[in-house]
Amino acid sequence: MIANTPNTPYYAVIFTSLRTEGDNNYSNTSEKIFDLAHRQKGFLGVETARESVGITVSYWNSLEAIKNWKCNAEHKAAQKKGRDIWYKSFKVRICKVERDYGFEI
Amino acid sequence: MIANTPNTPYYAVIFTSLRTEGDNNYSNTSEKIFDLAHRQKGFLGVETARESVGITVSYWNSLEAIKNWKCNAEHKAAQKKGRDIWYKSFKVRICKVERDYGFEI
Repeated sequence: MIANTPNTPYYAVIFTSLRTEGDNNYSNTSEKIFDLAHRQKGFLGVETARESVGITVSYWNSLEAIKNWKCNAEHKAAQKKGRDIWYKSFKVRICKVERDYGFEI
Repeated sequence: MIANTPNTPYYAVIFTSLRTEGDNNYSNTSEKIFDLAHRQKGFLGVETARESVGITVSYWNSLEAIKNWKCNAEHKAAQKKGRDIWYKSFKVRICKVERDYGFEI
């Protein structure tokens, strides 16, 4: 789904990653972390897709909300597993969404 | 591949889309447009993946470079096909990347 975000400005975290081989409980944890994100204060929506590269963009109403999410205990445990087991490499980009527009049939 | 972007700040265009049924010459045009983007002034890199939703994030060194790319004639023709044929819906988000960090094994 395309995230139903409010009027700009708001914030986006672009998380791009390359996975290691095997699931290693990634799918299960990933689902839990998505559920958890949806319940965080300031969360606006998320979009995700993976082919050769995985891209997850989460949207937030403030930089403070992003920081709080980064420091969430369960999320931190998942971040550690990401570095130790699931990802060959990743990049996190914190962005201010300055303008947006869309189209729908 | 994860885009090898320079130090912040730089700009990102997050393009999220839902496709209509059938290829309708999308794959062929899409490849051409990617090649063309790589040759645009101010282009820094691109990441793309599609599952139920398609996400393409392109990175640029200025808002002017993004504007010039939007107005490129071949790209404009593709944008029109996007609205007329290829997409059920899409959203374009213009962002300033304020901070980034990464990890590599």
